[in-house]
Amino acid sequence: MASNHTLSVDLGDRSYPIYIGSGLIHQPELLTSHIRGHSALIVTNTTVAPLYLNAIENSLNSAGIRYNSIKLDDGEQYKTIESVMAIIEILLTERHDRQTTLIALGGGVVGDIAGFTASIYQRGVHFIQVPTTLLSQVDSSVGGKTGVNHPLGKNMIGAFYQPQCVIADTSTLSTLPDRELSAGLAEVIKYGLIYDASFFSWLEQNISGLMQKDNSLLAEAILVSCQTKAEIVQQDERESGIRAILNLGHTFGHAIETTMGYGNWLHGEAVATGMVMACDLSLRQGWIDDSVRQRCISLLKKCSLPVSPPPDMGIDQYMDAMAIDKKTVNGTIKFILLEALGKAIVTSDYDPELLVQTLSEC
Amino acid sequence: MASNHTLSVDLGDRSYPIYIGSGLIHQPELLTSHIRGHSALIVTNTTVAPLYLNAIENSLNSAGIRYNSIKLDDGEQYKTIESVMAIIEILLTERHDRQTTLIALGGGVVGDIAGFTASIYQRGVHFIQVPTTLLSQVDSSVGGKTGVNHPLGKNMIGAFYQPQCVIADTSTLSTLPDRELSAGLAEVIKYGLIYDASFFSWLEQNISGLMQKDNSLLAEAILVSCQTKAEIVQQDERESGIRAILNLGHTFGHAIETTMGYGNWLHGEAVATGMVMACDLSLRQGWIDDSVRQRCISLLKKCSLPVSPPPDMGIDQYMDAMAIDKKTVNGTIKFILLEALGKAIVTSDYDPELLVQTLSEC
Repeated sequence: MASNHTLSVDLGDRSYPIYIGSGLIHQPELLTSHIRGHSALIVTNTTVAPLYLNAIENSLNSAGIRYNSIKLDDGEQYKTIESVMAIIEILLTERHDRQTTLIALGGGVVGDIAGFTASIYQRGVHFIQVPTTLLSQVDSSVGGKTGVNHPLGKNMIGAFYQPQCVIADTSTLSTLPDRELSAGLAEVIKYGLIYDASFFSWLEQNISGLMQKDNSLLAEAILVSCQTKAEIVQQDERESGIRAILNLGHTFGHAIETTMGYGNWLHGEAVATGMVMACDLSLRQGWIDDSVRQRCISLLKKCSLPVSPPPDMGIDQYMDAMAIDKKTVNGTIKFILLEALGKAIVTSDYDPELLVQTLSEC
Repeated sequence: MASNHTLSVDLGDRSYPIYIGSGLIHQPELLTSHIRGHSALIVTNTTVAPLYLNAIENSLNSAGIRYNSIKLDDGEQYKTIESVMAIIEILLTERHDRQTTLIALGGGVVGDIAGFTASIYQRGVHFIQVPTTLLSQVDSSVGGKTGVNHPLGKNMIGAFYQPQCVIADTSTLSTLPDRELSAGLAEVIKYGLIYDASFFSWLEQNISGLMQKDNSLLAEAILVSCQTKAEIVQQDERESGIRAILNLGHTFGHAIETTMGYGNWLHGEAVATGMVMACDLSLRQGWIDDSVRQRCISLLKKCSLPVSPPPDMGIDQYMDAMAIDKKTVNGTIKFILLEALGKAIVTSDYDPELLVQTLSEC
């Protein structure tokens, strides 16, 4: 049995707890103690609803909380303003007032949409995250980034908005498809690369257990990932500085996602390839040696993650997509690169010719 | 010549100045000193653009700031998520990054749309308000409420988001239609009713000069209105308590606006009638005497404002519209009522039968 952990994300009056462990969605009071009003709306999708909606409904029923639910279509391509408006339509039709709580039950897409909707409905109502994928448990559950995509760019519409609590139940990962488990591990590996070389080594040692969904190893990996992210976010909630290192691999990755069309590459897959490209550029800059890049590639491969970009993507496509990335300021693209295993930097001080080499040769 | 005033709205790291005076839009540095990046987007409408867009463009040109502009259709019926998406489309197409600044040039509708768009574009960029109507100079320029309407309710989608500065140029009121001047005076009168009996008396004495657009009287009225609103907002930025008194007349007024269709009644006109209804209910409760109601009606009439609701609106229509008002919590409608001239309270402790009398007899 996996041990249970509670981690506190310390952001002043926006602080909140993250509960990590097995079977937590069957503990009603974890959820209901964070609901202040008498109503709630569960936002989930058509894949997750048949598996876990009932557990959430039982919790709400036990506390006499009136609720509605909405099942979105499953996939990044539905992370749109239209989904937000569909949720708002239900909130208004069902007369949810400012005291209502939105409950995000699902992966990162559901969490991003529900959190953003909570931030703008009646200028802000409460929300609770119940992430059911590894990616959302280790990434979107910490930091308050919410939002939706625009056809011209990923996450271009959104808000910084913190949940009341996060309930990360590792037992929900038992139903997670292997491809999505791998995508989540890409972000777990990221924390090792940018911040914690010893965690990276721990991952190298335990990767086969993690791939076999060992509950206790997963809980440990989620805890360290969330702790690392919380430590970084607490220093820089609105990403004016260090927080940007959490985007290792994301500038390249977003370009791949945007160019290939949302939903064809999973976010974690694009990030995995993007991290290899970031290692490649760091190596060409002479900042890391090749062993770091090799260890990164080897670990990602053990997770069945892609380590090369789509062969048909040209340099122009990268440059176009990266030019509207949020990390681009006054036309200069900032990258997150490595100075060492476990140490990332945000920089626009790279050789553009080496960038072209990375884009053409990776 | 009107004297110039600078008022500081004190909200910690979200504090900002309000500049009030004649000819301010022809002082480029007022605007450009609050722009941090190298780009800006001017959001205005087809009515205001021919009058004042040039002045803003001249200011931006003088500082070498790259800009685009978007001219929305004029009217409350365009305060929609579609207008927000049209602005975001331009921001992305024209490659505006996180350092860009949105400049709202126009009335409250333009300010609300531009401010909300700024709050969600790339999770938040800067914005500056250049209000050109009396209503927006005394109301939306202070307090950071931004947002758009939904067909099922006014201002149901939005955010609390503060501007970098507000430039309230009283000379722009020279082109304001009389009907809109009156609508603005409704909100000015509100500050007297809820918070400042001596300001109410000052308005009674100076109403004809204000109606004739005396620049110095207008500047004085705007200053006192903004000071009053700032004093209230500083106590309660996110409206968990006292701030709600700023909504005197708004619950009735929103019901009229929603039922009659956005754009048929001006916001200030609906608020004027709503304030009379709030006085009526306060009187029926025995909290004020009839002289307060009479003085309110008399002053509003001198501003050519409506003091009775549309004759064809039934009680059911009020109750339906008010049930989804943001001030409704757990099904109970909260009203802002008067205990005296200059003293408002937020209460759900009223006699429902007296409410019905107000709705049917006003």
